[in-house]
Amino acid sequence: MVKIQLGTSIMGANELLARKNRAVFSEHDLLVANLMSSPGSGKTTILERTIESLKERLSIGVIEGDLYTDQDARRIEGKGVPVVQINTEGACHLDAGMVGRAYQQLVGHELDIVFIENVGNLVCPAEFDLGEDFKTVVISTTEGNDKPLKYPLIFCQATAILVNKIDLLPFTDFCLDKFKDDVASLNPAARVFQVSGRTGEGIEKWCDWLVGEVQRKRKESHRK
Amino acid sequence: MVKIQLGTSIMGANELLARKNRAVFSEHDLLVANLMSSPGSGKTTILERTIESLKERLSIGVIEGDLYTDQDARRIEGKGVPVVQINTEGACHLDAGMVGRAYQQLVGHELDIVFIENVGNLVCPAEFDLGEDFKTVVISTTEGNDKPLKYPLIFCQATAILVNKIDLLPFTDFCLDKFKDDVASLNPAARVFQVSGRTGEGIEKWCDWLVGEVQRKRKESHRK
Repeated sequence: MVKIQLGTSIMGANELLARKNRAVFSEHDLLVANLMSSPGSGKTTILERTIESLKERLSIGVIEGDLYTDQDARRIEGKGVPVVQINTEGACHLDAGMVGRAYQQLVGHELDIVFIENVGNLVCPAEFDLGEDFKTVVISTTEGNDKPLKYPLIFCQATAILVNKIDLLPFTDFCLDKFKDDVASLNPAARVFQVSGRTGEGIEKWCDWLVGEVQRKRKESHRK
Repeated sequence: MVKIQLGTSIMGANELLARKNRAVFSEHDLLVANLMSSPGSGKTTILERTIESLKERLSIGVIEGDLYTDQDARRIEGKGVPVVQINTEGACHLDAGMVGRAYQQLVGHELDIVFIENVGNLVCPAEFDLGEDFKTVVISTTEGNDKPLKYPLIFCQATAILVNKIDLLPFTDFCLDKFKDDVASLNPAARVFQVSGRTGEGIEKWCDWLVGEVQRKRKESHRK
């Protein structure tokens, strides 16, 4: 009897493609960040602010993941950086194959950093390695501070966590201390940034950290 | 050659179980509402308010879906109604089999209405019929008004749409008119309720509608 474990083989294929992406990104001296969050946490607004702040210092590209529309890609395009739209046609996450194909459209731009904006979903995207250097979770104060314990996988995987809509904190019951304690219990190494996509608060600190990560990856790869 | 279309057979099995649930719910003269939203839209807070408002008028049960924790179920239990927790252990949606098994724990309570709080996810839960009478989407003003066009399936399926955190509207860029226009373009029959789980605004109107739906289902089933 032959048993075909479909789940395993699909994830295995994704792992292979993620490894391939990772090799290509390293060859191109490129830092790649995978941005994940619930719908409406403000990923696109943060990305707009990040581009404004970083574009004099780094050469930036963006891969936009959405179920159907290209609204977000058009917003990013307005910031004057190359952007590739992936429409998943209903699929709830990006996978490494989609990202690999999308990245081919960015080759030749001599980029320092590529942001991948994943589909708005706090569950499924966490299960797919895209070959990125690190994962970032955006969570907004209006979503409540209980999210790390309710969606542990995504918070465990994040290198950086952006607490967005910090300007709305006084109007919510979000407890920053409880949030930070819960993150620390799951993932003590995660960096937590408090930001506001709307006012720009905290964006510089996040961008300085990104510049540091680009430099760190360069140094490490030149050492090899 | 035998081709096994796994995707189809899984959905087929869910459809069969959903049909079975629907027959049991009808036999028990029960209205069942499936509540779906992004993480942090405020489903549980709305449910607490709804129970407070309805429990003198209707006998209520709740099925709580979460990846791992039972925080929400404990909150609902505090309102004095029977609640069954489903932990999906990482799965991104509820299915009809899970709901059917959970409902067995509620049999004997002589309920008028059961609320199913789905996993926080605006994509995957929309693909699974649970045997419910209708689906409700909760969306909060802080998530932005672009969600219907970005997540069309779930908005197409909703009989009722609750725009929550209406008290935070003045602090956001959410455009109610654009939101309603987009909903109308996808799903003109959907009822839109503006509510605040925090202040209680709009909850009565939503609850009156629910009482009407319970009565309507009873009349229809007695006519048969």
